[in-house]
Amino acid sequence: MNYLKTVVIVFFCSIFSSTTLAQKHPSLMLTEAQLPEIRTGVQQYPLLQTSYEALKAEAELALKSPLNVPVPTDGGGGITHEQHKRNYINILNCGVAYQISQDKKYATYVRDILLNYASQYQKWPLHPKRKPNHPAGKIFWQGLNDCVWQVYVIQGYDLVYDALTAKEREQIEQNLFMPILKFLTVDSYETFNKIHNHGTWNVAAVGMTGYVLNQPDYVEMAIKGSKKDSKTGYLAQINQLFSPDGYYMEGPYYQRYALLPFILFAKAIHNYQPQLNIFAYRDRLLAKAINTSLQLTYTNGVLFPFNDAIKDKTYESIELVYGLNLAYADIKEENHLLDIAQKQKKVIVSDAGLKVAKAIAAGKTEPFKYQSQWIRDGGNGNEGGVGVLRAGDHKDQQALVFKAASQGMGHGHFDRLNILYYDNNAEVFIDYGAARFINIESKRGGHYLPENTSWAKQTVAHNTLVVDEISHYQAKEELGEKQHPELLYFSNQPQLQVVSAKETHAYADVDLYRTTALVKLPELHKALLIDVYRANSANNHQYDLPFWYNGHLVNSSFKINAITDNLRALGKANGYQHIWKTAENTLDTQGGFITILNNERFYTTHFTSGEALVVKQMAIGANDPEMSLFPGKGFMLSQAAAKNQTFVSVTEAHGGVDPINETITAAGSGISNLSLISSDDKQTQISFKLKGKTYNYTINYQDKDNYIIIK
Amino acid sequence: MNYLKTVVIVFFCSIFSSTTLAQKHPSLMLTEAQLPEIRTGVQQYPLLQTSYEALKAEAELALKSPLNVPVPTDGGGGITHEQHKRNYINILNCGVAYQISQDKKYATYVRDILLNYASQYQKWPLHPKRKPNHPAGKIFWQGLNDCVWQVYVIQGYDLVYDALTAKEREQIEQNLFMPILKFLTVDSYETFNKIHNHGTWNVAAVGMTGYVLNQPDYVEMAIKGSKKDSKTGYLAQINQLFSPDGYYMEGPYYQRYALLPFILFAKAIHNYQPQLNIFAYRDRLLAKAINTSLQLTYTNGVLFPFNDAIKDKTYESIELVYGLNLAYADIKEENHLLDIAQKQKKVIVSDAGLKVAKAIAAGKTEPFKYQSQWIRDGGNGNEGGVGVLRAGDHKDQQALVFKAASQGMGHGHFDRLNILYYDNNAEVFIDYGAARFINIESKRGGHYLPENTSWAKQTVAHNTLVVDEISHYQAKEELGEKQHPELLYFSNQPQLQVVSAKETHAYADVDLYRTTALVKLPELHKALLIDVYRANSANNHQYDLPFWYNGHLVNSSFKINAITDNLRALGKANGYQHIWKTAENTLDTQGGFITILNNERFYTTHFTSGEALVVKQMAIGANDPEMSLFPGKGFMLSQAAAKNQTFVSVTEAHGGVDPINETITAAGSGISNLSLISSDDKQTQISFKLKGKTYNYTINYQDKDNYIIIK
Repeated sequence: MNYLKTVVIVFFCSIFSSTTLAQKHPSLMLTEAQLPEIRTGVQQYPLLQTSYEALKAEAELALKSPLNVPVPTDGGGGITHEQHKRNYINILNCGVAYQISQDKKYATYVRDILLNYASQYQKWPLHPKRKPNHPAGKIFWQGLNDCVWQVYVIQGYDLVYDALTAKEREQIEQNLFMPILKFLTVDSYETFNKIHNHGTWNVAAVGMTGYVLNQPDYVEMAIKGSKKDSKTGYLAQINQLFSPDGYYMEGPYYQRYALLPFILFAKAIHNYQPQLNIFAYRDRLLAKAINTSLQLTYTNGVLFPFNDAIKDKTYESIELVYGLNLAYADIKEENHLLDIAQKQKKVIVSDAGLKVAKAIAAGKTEPFKYQSQWIRDGGNGNEGGVGVLRAGDHKDQQALVFKAASQGMGHGHFDRLNILYYDNNAEVFIDYGAARFINIESKRGGHYLPENTSWAKQTVAHNTLVVDEISHYQAKEELGEKQHPELLYFSNQPQLQVVSAKETHAYADVDLYRTTALVKLPELHKALLIDVYRANSANNHQYDLPFWYNGHLVNSSFKINAITDNLRALGKANGYQHIWKTAENTLDTQGGFITILNNERFYTTHFTSGEALVVKQMAIGANDPEMSLFPGKGFMLSQAAAKNQTFVSVTEAHGGVDPINETITAAGSGISNLSLISSDDKQTQISFKLKGKTYNYTINYQDKDNYIIIK
Repeated sequence: MNYLKTVVIVFFCSIFSSTTLAQKHPSLMLTEAQLPEIRTGVQQYPLLQTSYEALKAEAELALKSPLNVPVPTDGGGGITHEQHKRNYINILNCGVAYQISQDKKYATYVRDILLNYASQYQKWPLHPKRKPNHPAGKIFWQGLNDCVWQVYVIQGYDLVYDALTAKEREQIEQNLFMPILKFLTVDSYETFNKIHNHGTWNVAAVGMTGYVLNQPDYVEMAIKGSKKDSKTGYLAQINQLFSPDGYYMEGPYYQRYALLPFILFAKAIHNYQPQLNIFAYRDRLLAKAINTSLQLTYTNGVLFPFNDAIKDKTYESIELVYGLNLAYADIKEENHLLDIAQKQKKVIVSDAGLKVAKAIAAGKTEPFKYQSQWIRDGGNGNEGGVGVLRAGDHKDQQALVFKAASQGMGHGHFDRLNILYYDNNAEVFIDYGAARFINIESKRGGHYLPENTSWAKQTVAHNTLVVDEISHYQAKEELGEKQHPELLYFSNQPQLQVVSAKETHAYADVDLYRTTALVKLPELHKALLIDVYRANSANNHQYDLPFWYNGHLVNSSFKINAITDNLRALGKANGYQHIWKTAENTLDTQGGFITILNNERFYTTHFTSGEALVVKQMAIGANDPEMSLFPGKGFMLSQAAAKNQTFVSVTEAHGGVDPINETITAAGSGISNLSLISSDDKQTQISFKLKGKTYNYTINYQDKDNYIIIK
């Protein structure tokens, strides 16, 4: 731990004990002081109004349904699981509805259901559907969900606190919350002290409950770890789970998930112990974490789905609504955040949501400022990172994501130097995400499927180089954790945006170098995607470079040798067994092109390697006994045996289809004659023709001042 | 031709000659009299304003581009094709912009480009990319497009008429329009007199040009055919191409396409010869045609894509904007039409569009009245038909389409008694549509692909019974044209909506009976889809019933025997060669179920046949040498050999997934124990359990008063 961190932690320790905790209620997301303005705000500010109306409708539904606190029995997605989930959602909704409407019926609901839980909880053993070697819960199959339950429920309790009698509070606190605190800190000691998103939910549940119940000892443990030495606990998690740029190493899907307990607990700390100045901690880390979460999305709202990720997650996700509201209200009033708030179409009915809705109603919204940036990974910011290059306006933006980050723990994929490409509000070169039907019991209990390991994490499932049909780091997490790629060069200069990185440990004797750029040329409306992938080795290897895409292949420079019957898997292992080979062509040294039509636009990828090249067409789905894999298509550039290999591709987005008027524009690419002139450790030179003009594109690997020259 | 039609035609003939044609300009979609109100309307009424602004922006773009009238060279989607298309769109846009803005620059554009066409047209031979045995054009590869060009261009000319000098008009009329009239009526005599949508475009082009040029002889030929005996021409087409319910036999995609010339020419007749009362002709046939076009869509806007159809066509299609505007303005002001107008997000800048926009601005919009109805096919309404059953509100409507129509000429598919099922704003049991990449030159010139014949039209590509792996009518159009299915029973009673029909000629010795119903039971929120398909024969046959679906299979009552490698085509011919068999299971007499997750909702289909049953899983894509087929999945119920066979399926829409909150509701079906009790010519009896209650469902084929009993 570095000196600065030590200073900060010492500071925290010194002021900690001198604090008297305020004990008003409510005092978490909604505070007593703001309530009058929120109560009028829900009638004045449209976004707050609709958010409250939706919440109130849900609260009404809760009141109509019979109280149901079943003995925990079922796993994820099953009946008792879903019921307890609905219960905590209802408790929070009714708590908020009570405070806004001041109608006691909502408080009565919360009281009754909490008394019911209080009457049963201590009889519940560890959950019958718990998994071996996985922290169990009591209400749910895993402890994580018990923590989430507690985070929601303590907020609901805080909101109805003043409507309860002292006796009722005692019953609930003594028979439910105190036993839960013990379960979360003692029985779940390991998770409570884990530097992990399960640990974050745990400390948030404990800390927020500690504040509401006036249990400062629990609060201190939540913030500084069981031993109160800050080697574990909330602050240690902020230090270690995020890079200095606010990047959470498991990737955007889990960053989004992990964010909520961080910011909810931060809000509690901010309210109860403002002198801790938690939002300033570690150079405004939480603000950066929220911002980076938003920057890891595309203009259509989707989170970049690398590593384990469920692909339909967007920034409408509740965690990012909380994140955005708190960032705007409690950290900094940046009006471009309001753009996404409007697209989220809701605010949290709270102090923060009031502020956001009020600002939107006052017309302060500005377009969200999507950045082209290099986001560092690693607690100290020196474990690779993620490059995001963007070009164009919100309606039609190109985005190139270059993954040169660390392994990302258990949810990380083996996809060093992978790229994703978005354009025209759609995913073009895609990421499969994870193989999981979350919460669908009939699909392996809703857990990650075996195919997540055998397919989704494997290198060949991504748009990056595979050597000898073996995945990076042999698909072993413990090996991958030891090494990270290294950034060679980054530029977000508007005409020439570049990410260049190397990965030299994925294979024992192969060094990988990838340089991907969005290049704006005067002849073209959209930037070209120029990708140069170089593999260096002293020995012969098989090199495969897949590109998984959305859309339909409509043209190619060569007649595709489609395999019309007797479809076979492309290979035997490491993901290859899951791919159907649907075509194979051998091209000469000139290379060739294919054209894809996706979301009414054409994408022509010209490719060459300077030598004879094999191009395969692929479809996902072989060796899928439980029919769990989603359909998908890709093409693969292959070299059967070479020592040094360079794959060059230039992808042009051109023209389009208007299905309503049945017109086509610019169905033909303007690029031709792509050539690889030379490629070695110092330099790669390529050329291509565009509308009669010849362009030369040179990468100077050892000259950072002239890394790429194009003329 | 029946007596009534004869009377009507005699009437038309008698009043025709006594008419003096008005000769004002403009007098087609925009008339001189309405112009003042349109000019203010574009500033007052939002939908008219935005429509005009979009049009004006396109007109501005036309002025900025260099005038380009290339010698016709390229086929569909090619450069000269697209340029001439853009030209006619520009001519109309500039004509309208001229009249609204009164800025001469737009008229100058139209004048210059028409003079250019006039200087070249007579030198152009038949198009070099014309296809053998297909009517050629001069401007375009096919005559159809020349007619479309003329329909647009004559409107543009009419709009700038008063801005041209007499000499300019003479040049354009003598050197361009009169030669075109000759080409369309003499060189294209066959098409001009064809009862076909190509014929409709032709007569519309000739008739509208005849009006604008004051050439009554051409007008009369357009309306009554070259021989002026009404055996061909516009009126004959209205009589023969539509059923009395306004159904166009080629199906919704072509109905939408064919509609535009009908209604544009009708508008011209209405303006120039109002005494013909064209909108009243044949019992308001045109009004019915427009209404039926709209009724053949789903709540998300898509046209039901049966027969040859490109699937992304919606009611935003320009033909349906024209249709809706004219229906509202010139036929009947039904305020529910305004609902769809708002979803179309535009109006035609015209007299009709003004009226629609004004009514919307005045808040007159009512929800569109989607009907459950039987729509008759055939010129006399006795050639089968299409049943549409609907349940639920616009946001979440179930729609069942039952196809028992005639063959539908060359674009018809071999899919007697096919069903499509929509729910929750999505297609659940789907139609592949057509195999065609319209206007994409690299895909066989943008024409229908060979796979349209070998796959898309074949019976097995649809959700209907296939016998012995042979398509209905052996996939021969001339055989299919001779016969049509017969409606046995229809009911749109809200709790029990039914279509029951038979097809007894698709196979020499097999009679097909299908009874499909949407059944609303008190225990369930959504109606059940109950489908009973009976095949009768004296001989043994193989019976296959496919269901093609959207979504992913997530559960089944049996362990699916997935084929994990070495994928083989399901069969050899008639579409079977294009299907990969991905799994096969043999079930006992109880049958089983599968559950699909689509668009965040579950669909469990329980099925039985009362005997051991084979269920196959299928994926589209085998024997696809040009990689033209889109991916798709289905399951198939199969009986290897039987004389009489009944397949029963009950599909329940249940529960759902909220990906944003990651919650699941009701992932399990409430239905169980589906049984086929008995089935013969008189009756089919089935039963099933629902929430503990046993339901009996009986079809009494010979008792129309008790066709279905459920208790």
